[in-house]
Amino acid sequence: MKNLTHVDNDGKANMVDVSGKTPNMRTAKAFGEVFVSGELFEKIKNNKIEKGDVLTTAKIAGIQGGKKTSELIPLCHNIFISKLDINLTLNEKNKSVEIVSYAKTNSVTGIEMEALTAVAIAALTVYDMCKAVDKSIRISNIKLLSKTGGKSRDYTLEK
Amino acid sequence: MKNLTHVDNDGKANMVDVSGKTPNMRTAKAFGEVFVSGELFEKIKNNKIEKGDVLTTAKIAGIQGGKKTSELIPLCHNIFISKLDINLTLNEKNKSVEIVSYAKTNSVTGIEMEALTAVAIAALTVYDMCKAVDKSIRISNIKLLSKTGGKSRDYTLEK
Amino acid sequence: MKNLTHVDNDGKANMVDVSGKTPNMRTAKAFGEVFVSGELFEKIKNNKIEKGDVLTTAKIAGIQGGKKTSELIPLCHNIFISKLDINLTLNEKNKSVEIVSYAKTNSVTGIEMEALTAVAIAALTVYDMCKAVDKSIRISNIKLLSKTGGKSRDYTLEK
Amino acid sequence: MKNLTHVDNDGKANMVDVSGKTPNMRTAKAFGEVFVSGELFEKIKNNKIEKGDVLTTAKIAGIQGGKKTSELIPLCHNIFISKLDINLTLNEKNKSVEIVSYAKTNSVTGIEMEALTAVAIAALTVYDMCKAVDKSIRISNIKLLSKTGGKSRDYTLEK
Amino acid sequence: MKNLTHVDNDGKANMVDVSGKTPNMRTAKAFGEVFVSGELFEKIKNNKIEKGDVLTTAKIAGIQGGKKTSELIPLCHNIFISKLDINLTLNEKNKSVEIVSYAKTNSVTGIEMEALTAVAIAALTVYDMCKAVDKSIRISNIKLLSKTGGKSRDYTLEK
Amino acid sequence: MKNLTHVDNDGKANMVDVSGKTPNMRTAKAFGEVFVSGELFEKIKNNKIEKGDVLTTAKIAGIQGGKKTSELIPLCHNIFISKLDINLTLNEKNKSVEIVSYAKTNSVTGIEMEALTAVAIAALTVYDMCKAVDKSIRISNIKLLSKTGGKSRDYTLEK
Repeated sequence: MKNLTHVDNDGKANMVDVSGKTPNMRTAKAFGEVFVSGELFEKIKNNKIEKGDVLTTAKIAGIQGGKKTSELIPLCHNIFISKLDINLTLNEKNKSVEIVSYAKTNSVTGIEMEALTAVAIAALTVYDMCKAVDKSIRISNIKLLSKTGGKSRDYTLEK
Repeated sequence: MKNLTHVDNDGKANMVDVSGKTPNMRTAKAFGEVFVSGELFEKIKNNKIEKGDVLTTAKIAGIQGGKKTSELIPLCHNIFISKLDINLTLNEKNKSVEIVSYAKTNSVTGIEMEALTAVAIAALTVYDMCKAVDKSIRISNIKLLSKTGGKSRDYTLEK
Repeated sequence: MKNLTHVDNDGKANMVDVSGKTPNMRTAKAFGEVFVSGELFEKIKNNKIEKGDVLTTAKIAGIQGGKKTSELIPLCHNIFISKLDINLTLNEKNKSVEIVSYAKTNSVTGIEMEALTAVAIAALTVYDMCKAVDKSIRISNIKLLSKTGGKSRDYTLEK
Repeated sequence: MKNLTHVDNDGKANMVDVSGKTPNMRTAKAFGEVFVSGELFEKIKNNKIEKGDVLTTAKIAGIQGGKKTSELIPLCHNIFISKLDINLTLNEKNKSVEIVSYAKTNSVTGIEMEALTAVAIAALTVYDMCKAVDKSIRISNIKLLSKTGGKSRDYTLEK
Repeated sequence: MKNLTHVDNDGKANMVDVSGKTPNMRTAKAFGEVFVSGELFEKIKNNKIEKGDVLTTAKIAGIQGGKKTSELIPLCHNIFISKLDINLTLNEKNKSVEIVSYAKTNSVTGIEMEALTAVAIAALTVYDMCKAVDKSIRISNIKLLSKTGGKSRDYTLEK
Repeated sequence: MKNLTHVDNDGKANMVDVSGKTPNMRTAKAFGEVFVSGELFEKIKNNKIEKGDVLTTAKIAGIQGGKKTSELIPLCHNIFISKLDINLTLNEKNKSVEIVSYAKTNSVTGIEMEALTAVAIAALTVYDMCKAVDKSIRISNIKLLSKTGGKSRDYTLEK
């Protein structure tokens, strides 16, 4: 009997019921960075990676990945995405590719996961484009920078 | 004419030709961690997250996400995955969820991206399950721990 | 000429035009059951299946499968799903896993197929988790228990 | 500490490691049936369902659904499918649509889930095509008829 | 530095922000044709292609493909599709299969790409069904016939 | 009874059984072109399309689309793709974007559909990127240039 209870209580996974909520404009901004070796950083900067243009490929992959969020994250809702943008910039000092995404929806639930997933897929794509050069690439600091809209208060990450 | 050249030279993206390679056993082990607040850590540990069982949901999402790698990463090959496992453990000291994935293939190209993608999707799922409690969750240190098989030397991340 | 006519008349497949309909709250509840051997039933109940936790894996697979309904069923609309839940319980007397799903949408067309697809994918996942133990598993009685909302009358299955 | 253990032991889900297995020819045959009202049965038989040709649409949906098995069932391997066929026939006596699928692969693991998933998606498509006429449709007896190939013995369902 | 600039300026890809737009009824009609040999034309007309019923399979594939538009075209929005129909007819004089699609949405952005993608996937399916007979099949004149709704003027292709 | 026969004979769709075939190296080269207005041609050439870099976005979309072939075309097999490349060049004289794809597999069945699908998705992406400027864009001449490998003779399109 203990096991049956276990199944009901512990193995739970519930999609939040958003049916009573009113659609409003919601935004989310997310961040992530990909740390690379000095040698690899120069190659990305000079667009000398054999597999192709790292930042453009990662940008497009990130947008497409963000649109797949509800397919990838089990309890995410399949909301309409009004906008999803990604910018990748090179941080010379840290030898990193910095990724910022910005997502918008006019929906009943927020768009944080879409922004975060877009960053993660863009970062993984940077890894894939460059792994022949450097296997010690590290993806870090994927986090929500801010969100607006929705019932819960607007949020901005403290520095 | 400059622009045409630009298009050919810079906007490139090439899938590596693996047709001449011999299949052999290849493995990859990847890592990532999700840093949470002390309060959230206790809730995960005690399985008190309202949305459901965080670690199990993340594990299954990670396996399914890893199987989608060639769909998510533009230049990845659609290799056969012989095994893909994910383990999530709670690191009490760091207040983090540590994720380790292990992937195996008998194929002509390696399985690093599958291992890394599985970790990233599992980490994003942890975020999604817990974001109602803590929005400052941070996903970090997604990296390859080791790989074996293939033409290039076996690789183990230096500590 | 006969064949041309054939093509127009018999080989038809039309997506219903829902553009003139008003969105309203719609729900659907579906059912299905998986009949197993006595030996397998005990293993599921005691969580002794080597491949993993049957009921939790099936639950998550069912939710994810339900979200894929419009991709799987050719003439289904890609509606927004407000909620999709699945519960699996063990029926000791029948030696079966009973699956009930509940889906909700605020949309112009109903959500019966999402509820039914979720049940079917959860049931198939039970099969997959357990097939090493028992190949004679049988999935039966997938049916709509009730629906509400929409132009057609609310529906409850007669016992 | 109890909870940590719980997470490791109960929330498990492992993809079977098939890397050491030798590919050989494997087949699977699956069955399912869709029970409908007498009125609906006549409409299907006379191809008078407004939404379109029920059996052809279901057949194509089933083939496409079977190809999605590894995406739908969390722990399934993404094997190469050599053949996947579905036949739907009308059983006048039972007022049912009988579905038989047949799948083949030359791979390291079996193809039962592909055959079963194809049947389930075809059956759900029959439901979708006909639900405007009859909501009490019932999908039953989805089961494996036989399998050949692989390390475990060939299997044929006893009548 | 030139390269960094390049990355920012040229490698751009932006999803249009549709968050401020008001939903209204939008339609799109698209066209395409598949030119085949005289011998193949007769086989399609008489439904004698071994692989199956060409026009029905292509119709269903086209509808399903159109529903995948936002997954296939990087900067497309995942709009709700109210209706998506495809008709294939045989043009005896031109020895071609003519494909017309019609799509409808009540959304903030138009549905041209869904109509065009549906035509393209239906045309590719005709190719696939018939390629054993004739490899010189040619898909041509995929174009928008008309669109209505939205901020920009209604559009009808000039003959 | 006529209708039953109809269903069996006409509504057929069979995946070719490739289980007895021996894997060998197969290639396919496909072509397509997108005709645009003179004004639009200049904008593409000078990379002045507001939505982003047309040719690079189309190239990446084409590669990703080609990898989805077995999901889009109902009776295609899910073969392993060893290589899939796409090149887009501007034809000044014809005011067109010319697309050539090249695909390779070491498999039991050919890779023509992957090459053709990649071209079609790249062409549709060109349309999407540019449709705000010119709605009369036309996609034409999607065809197989050549194929090698497999049981049937190598094929080269006659000029």
